[in-house]
Amino acid sequence: MAGAQDSALAAAVSNAGGLGSLPCATLSAAVLRSEISSLKQQTSKPFNVNFFCHAPPGADAAREAAWRARLSPYYRAFGLEFDTASDGSQRRPFGHAEAELLCEMRPAPAVVSFHFGLPSADLLSRIRALGSRVISSATTIEEARWLEARGVDAIIAQGLEAGGHRGMFLSDDLATQMGTFALLPQIVRAVKTPVIAAGGIADSQGVAAAMALGAQAVQIGTAYLLCPEATTSPVHRAALKGEQAGRTALTNLFTGRPARGIVNRLMTELGAMSEVPAFPLAAAAIAPLRARAESAGSGDFSPLWAGQNARGCREVSAAALTRQLAAGIVTVTLTPPDSAS
Amino acid sequence: MAGAQDSALAAAVSNAGGLGSLPCATLSAAVLRSEISSLKQQTSKPFNVNFFCHAPPGADAAREAAWRARLSPYYRAFGLEFDTASDGSQRRPFGHAEAELLCEMRPAPAVVSFHFGLPSADLLSRIRALGSRVISSATTIEEARWLEARGVDAIIAQGLEAGGHRGMFLSDDLATQMGTFALLPQIVRAVKTPVIAAGGIADSQGVAAAMALGAQAVQIGTAYLLCPEATTSPVHRAALKGEQAGRTALTNLFTGRPARGIVNRLMTELGAMSEVPAFPLAAAAIAPLRARAESAGSGDFSPLWAGQNARGCREVSAAALTRQLAAGIVTVTLTPPDSAS
Repeated sequence: MAGAQDSALAAAVSNAGGLGSLPCATLSAAVLRSEISSLKQQTSKPFNVNFFCHAPPGADAAREAAWRARLSPYYRAFGLEFDTASDGSQRRPFGHAEAELLCEMRPAPAVVSFHFGLPSADLLSRIRALGSRVISSATTIEEARWLEARGVDAIIAQGLEAGGHRGMFLSDDLATQMGTFALLPQIVRAVKTPVIAAGGIADSQGVAAAMALGAQAVQIGTAYLLCPEATTSPVHRAALKGEQAGRTALTNLFTGRPARGIVNRLMTELGAMSEVPAFPLAAAAIAPLRARAESAGSGDFSPLWAGQNARGCREVSAAALTRQLAAGIVTVTLTPPDSAS
Repeated sequence: MAGAQDSALAAAVSNAGGLGSLPCATLSAAVLRSEISSLKQQTSKPFNVNFFCHAPPGADAAREAAWRARLSPYYRAFGLEFDTASDGSQRRPFGHAEAELLCEMRPAPAVVSFHFGLPSADLLSRIRALGSRVISSATTIEEARWLEARGVDAIIAQGLEAGGHRGMFLSDDLATQMGTFALLPQIVRAVKTPVIAAGGIADSQGVAAAMALGAQAVQIGTAYLLCPEATTSPVHRAALKGEQAGRTALTNLFTGRPARGIVNRLMTELGAMSEVPAFPLAAAAIAPLRARAESAGSGDFSPLWAGQNARGCREVSAAALTRQLAAGIVTVTLTPPDSAS
């Protein structure tokens, strides 16, 4: 959950018996180093480091200009000017610098996870050589098969309920995206690799349901957003606690890729899915608006990432939440019918 | 499943221990009478009759003209002419004529279900006086509370994975629509009325998962579409068996209201959600295109209703499928964590 947590939440989850995850995609090399170091000081349990692996886009002056033109009324209203020096691209794909850093870690992270596919084969080999398990997200059966063919140790089936960025990487067609109830069992049937369920799971009953559908584990994000250990911003916390948490949508306005967030003013006024610069470039022109609005207590221009079950969020410690969720890890045995034929 | 089944499928399900349902919204009074009579001859078990209860729209000449203009290239290609006499509205809301017919039934149907809300209070009282249970679909927590306030006997939580028409009736905002994993437990928490899960449930594991999330029963449609007892059209069956079954979307092109179907040519070329005449008037101008295309073995202009788990459809008897699904009716007991706090 890049932007809503750091090593404190990851450590709390790992210490409670879960696999805490550190979102690394938005961290500079220096911060990444210190965060991993801090995480290792806070827990001796296994943890997960997560990276993005998108292909960085080339600059597209016309698209950027069109985007700024659409945002200019907001800039004028705030008395802001476009800063042509800002590239705003704080999301870097996993590369050799990051691999190098993982190689320096002793011991290596138990799990390295990716969003938007996988890095190149040579980068993957470097991670495997460390003994780390590699996992990534699939949003379609085709993506699950693609990941299995590349030997991942587990596949996260990311249902449409999930908050934040859709991990989709083989297609940008939103009609391929399925709810957890449909996606999870289809991926479980399609691959031999263990499957981790994600999307809409907010409590132990959700965990049990995912296990019933064939998941071997679950990945949970949104439910942790109100934990005191999360760094969720005040405007984000307020939205999660309000009635509007029941209205989320996929939007590409904040980064250029579809991600699920609570519907806010920018999404309503521009249309949640729109023509914007390629991921992650759309974020640059949004950043000043977001900063100005947040400083006034408004989430009108903020990505309020949340899954569709956000109304279940509670202000409870990450340790307690992790233990509560773990009660859902059950084996559901079905009795076959006497005479199915 | 209006258009894809008649009393034969409903009877087969009821005879196998399920609650078979007869879709009545598209039936004329004469056919409705004969279908119910036929159903009662085929089963002595309880069954369900389903009606729509939308408010019929007024004519809107400008909207109709714009719709025909958009479809005119297809009409020209097929050598068809617009038939101004056709109103194509084969979907009637539940009214006094239908209530009268139910009153004549001995015994009354065990369950009368509605889509798009509920009929007027006086119509509801007539049904209740017969001793029939009344159920309806909710696609949001607000709709579930609305139905509970009107005393329904059960609420169908229709997750976004579901095939066919979204039952939404308090809002037409698609951002309110949630996947089953998110919607079901939230409705279970919000109401005291028993909740029936729908959307993406295709096998006994899906049934077990729904029970884990608090459902008392499940409603299953798509999984029955390839049963020999269903009247699913040849083009619809072909689509369900093909790779394209994995790509569904909500579309209002075929009727005026959002419904989930397999993506086909019309949806691709016009955009699945578009400006069309109000429900159910959009269907009229589509009907001739559909008929002509289907006669040539093409589903390009047909509503290929299907849920997101359509790839699980199998050509198995409705009785066998019902028994297989029933194996998922389990009680999932969760052990509370030792020290949750």
